[in-house]
Amino acid sequence: MKHRQILLLLIVFLGSSTPLWCQKNNIRSESHSSDSAMIRNIYNQALSNGEAYENLRYLCKEIGARITGSSEAQMAVEWGQRKMKEYGLEVSLQEITVPHWERGTKEAFWIRSEKGIITKLHGLALGGSIGTNGTLRGELVVLPSLEALKNSPKESIEGKIVFVNQAMDEQQIQTFKAYGGCYPLRGNGASEGAKKGALAVIIRSLGLAIDIHPHTGSMRYEEGVEQIPAAAISTSDAEKIALYTDEHPNEQIEFIMEMDCKILEDKTSYNVIGEIPGTSKRKKIISIGGHLDSWDTGEGAHDDGAGIVHCLEAFRILKNMKYHPKHTIRVVFFMNEENGNMGGKTYAKWVKEKKEKHVAAIESDRGGFAPRGFTCDGSEAQIKWLKSLQPLFEIYDLHVFEKGYGGVDIGPLKKEYKNIALFGFVPDSQRYFDMHHSPNDVFENVNKRELELGAAAIASFLFLLDQQLD
Amino acid sequence: MKHRQILLLLIVFLGSSTPLWCQKNNIRSESHSSDSAMIRNIYNQALSNGEAYENLRYLCKEIGARITGSSEAQMAVEWGQRKMKEYGLEVSLQEITVPHWERGTKEAFWIRSEKGIITKLHGLALGGSIGTNGTLRGELVVLPSLEALKNSPKESIEGKIVFVNQAMDEQQIQTFKAYGGCYPLRGNGASEGAKKGALAVIIRSLGLAIDIHPHTGSMRYEEGVEQIPAAAISTSDAEKIALYTDEHPNEQIEFIMEMDCKILEDKTSYNVIGEIPGTSKRKKIISIGGHLDSWDTGEGAHDDGAGIVHCLEAFRILKNMKYHPKHTIRVVFFMNEENGNMGGKTYAKWVKEKKEKHVAAIESDRGGFAPRGFTCDGSEAQIKWLKSLQPLFEIYDLHVFEKGYGGVDIGPLKKEYKNIALFGFVPDSQRYFDMHHSPNDVFENVNKRELELGAAAIASFLFLLDQQLD
Repeated sequence: MKHRQILLLLIVFLGSSTPLWCQKNNIRSESHSSDSAMIRNIYNQALSNGEAYENLRYLCKEIGARITGSSEAQMAVEWGQRKMKEYGLEVSLQEITVPHWERGTKEAFWIRSEKGIITKLHGLALGGSIGTNGTLRGELVVLPSLEALKNSPKESIEGKIVFVNQAMDEQQIQTFKAYGGCYPLRGNGASEGAKKGALAVIIRSLGLAIDIHPHTGSMRYEEGVEQIPAAAISTSDAEKIALYTDEHPNEQIEFIMEMDCKILEDKTSYNVIGEIPGTSKRKKIISIGGHLDSWDTGEGAHDDGAGIVHCLEAFRILKNMKYHPKHTIRVVFFMNEENGNMGGKTYAKWVKEKKEKHVAAIESDRGGFAPRGFTCDGSEAQIKWLKSLQPLFEIYDLHVFEKGYGGVDIGPLKKEYKNIALFGFVPDSQRYFDMHHSPNDVFENVNKRELELGAAAIASFLFLLDQQLD
Repeated sequence: MKHRQILLLLIVFLGSSTPLWCQKNNIRSESHSSDSAMIRNIYNQALSNGEAYENLRYLCKEIGARITGSSEAQMAVEWGQRKMKEYGLEVSLQEITVPHWERGTKEAFWIRSEKGIITKLHGLALGGSIGTNGTLRGELVVLPSLEALKNSPKESIEGKIVFVNQAMDEQQIQTFKAYGGCYPLRGNGASEGAKKGALAVIIRSLGLAIDIHPHTGSMRYEEGVEQIPAAAISTSDAEKIALYTDEHPNEQIEFIMEMDCKILEDKTSYNVIGEIPGTSKRKKIISIGGHLDSWDTGEGAHDDGAGIVHCLEAFRILKNMKYHPKHTIRVVFFMNEENGNMGGKTYAKWVKEKKEKHVAAIESDRGGFAPRGFTCDGSEAQIKWLKSLQPLFEIYDLHVFEKGYGGVDIGPLKKEYKNIALFGFVPDSQRYFDMHHSPNDVFENVNKRELELGAAAIASFLFLLDQQLD
């Protein structure tokens, strides 16, 4: 009796806390084998008849880097529209207003020692920065961190160019955590420097490898604070400067830079939305997406070309297998994730305004590497459901099924739908920050098989979610 | 009472079946936190002060490809000796007799259509093959598999050059399984062709990517069967030939080849053995190693430069942390894994002859990719112990702790020591066969961070093994 009582309590407890999630425990063993067979088929399709790799090649090589507001971004919208139609989705464009920043044609960085020795540095303006209006020169101040900049006396900074040599923490096993540790520096470094009278703020690139590739990324100006130029130099240049200044502590070094990047007027752009109506649960919507825009350097191959083709391929495979989803599935190519997230924000508001019932969303925006699993930004019950999938994926080498982040694009849905489950696809993160936002993020650095395994994992996950979500 | 009885039975059962493995369940919770702290320190050392990457650069760039019997292999022996001494190991060389095969200076492959159109192919002689003694020409026969070759009537093969277009199965998630499926073709294809009167046997490279890089590897001649030349052509060439012959089924195509590779007299070479005597269990030995030889193309970076520097680094980190192993630890750089395994075989015989008590061995020979876990070729109790480690490694993203292969070099120890536990390090396998045995297996294709994480995983594993093994 005692055991039965506990079981009963458990059922009541689970039932009450998981209104949106089907309790299939009683039929789990039956459904398990058919789920397994379906997943095996999905993987076979992705690995033997996949189109993800060719789609990524097209996006990277025939279109290229796709910064918001650029002609390339518009070409990518048109490409997305065509591919979605070709694969049988009902396509619509959702108009959004996006920021427009251009790097311009001139970008150069040097240091000059007291003896006049000039060394060229590999640098990139941070996205959103103003230009230098010709050559900008200033005495170099090297600081170890954003905190050190905030704590510096004004007189040590005023009229100088600050270089903050804050490195990502290589001891973090999850590289996104190391990235998170430096993110505030990139975003706020310039305004913090301006408060102390700096002429410009240069940061060490947010990358883990020591190499010559600079990494750009978004920055923002604090209201009411003077706007000064912001750039990132390569990690190898950062190491060289640190070594030189350590060895010559009293030497006055000059930093010289020119950037003609500029903030232009906002433009009109689009989210590309492809939909397939559900069968039995048509009014309940699951969105799956990545972002179509990228930075203007490299080709946006891992960030986020991979995510775009993952989601497209997940849909294509299920469609090809004649799977008719119960829920309405919406494949969304978001615009402007990198510098404003206007795509994600506008989409979330729009679906709420239309009074749609949006039950879940999946995002792929961590690169095209070998899949490791999925994270869930949701309720305890939703996370519990996610964890229940792990046995199905074990033979595919996916082991990470845990609470965690969904994604930037789908994030705003959480504000509109308290009970929505957001899922983030988790590929291996070890190589991501060797390429992220740098000239190194090109098609050649995406492995075909790893990309295909990612698409298969996402297709399988979408299938299970559609099947098991109430 | 009932529960206590079961527990008692369980203890008796475990105790009796695991004579070599310490039963620490009662102190597990205590030791767990200090183990965790030790592992965290090991990872920090590997990621912040690692020497694995520079050691690999040296082995790949200053020495290069190291086929058994070559000057490079000898240079690698001398390098290994020096590094082991530098790191504080007592070093000795173990003399072994090894086969000696040389590729020679000429190697070329073409096909010629009926209309006389000549197309050059990217090929490599298989290791151990005889040469062609000038130009060899013959009508091309394309077959899909080794089985098809075995089943072909003699008259369809006699006097012709056979191309076996057997591809690795891309639907296998574990790429080593796909490799295993084609391994007999590479090893025995030539002799099977010779039995039917073929002039030569060409195989499709054992690689998963479709590219221009041919993959070599070992082959052997069956005794009493005529020796004919054997080579591999690139997967993209294989696809082209398949496409052309499909479209022109009645066309007679000529295959033309020249190879002046040759089998030379056996030579003397060495295993490099570095030892540190144990404290409390000095007479019990744990070996840890990889193989120093490689194929003669590329730089043997993943296969098995990575394994060599993994093991060296694992020892260096523990030594640097002032860890004094209980067991005698032996770092072994085996020679001749690729074409004879004379290093592994000689080592196993030697330790047995010396009546050493050899309790465990660890091998790293699956590349320098992000670590996934370890496999165990051992008893149920040993596998159970391995599985018990998984919680300690979960935060490092290692999840695979299961029964499986140890490695080619340490394999012969099993014959001599029935109760030995052999452990294989398991990195991610998805990219391995893009490089394996090809010109693509170079230092540039090893990621620093992935290599370091592998060394940290192996050092942590060695520490736990030394601590917990009786």
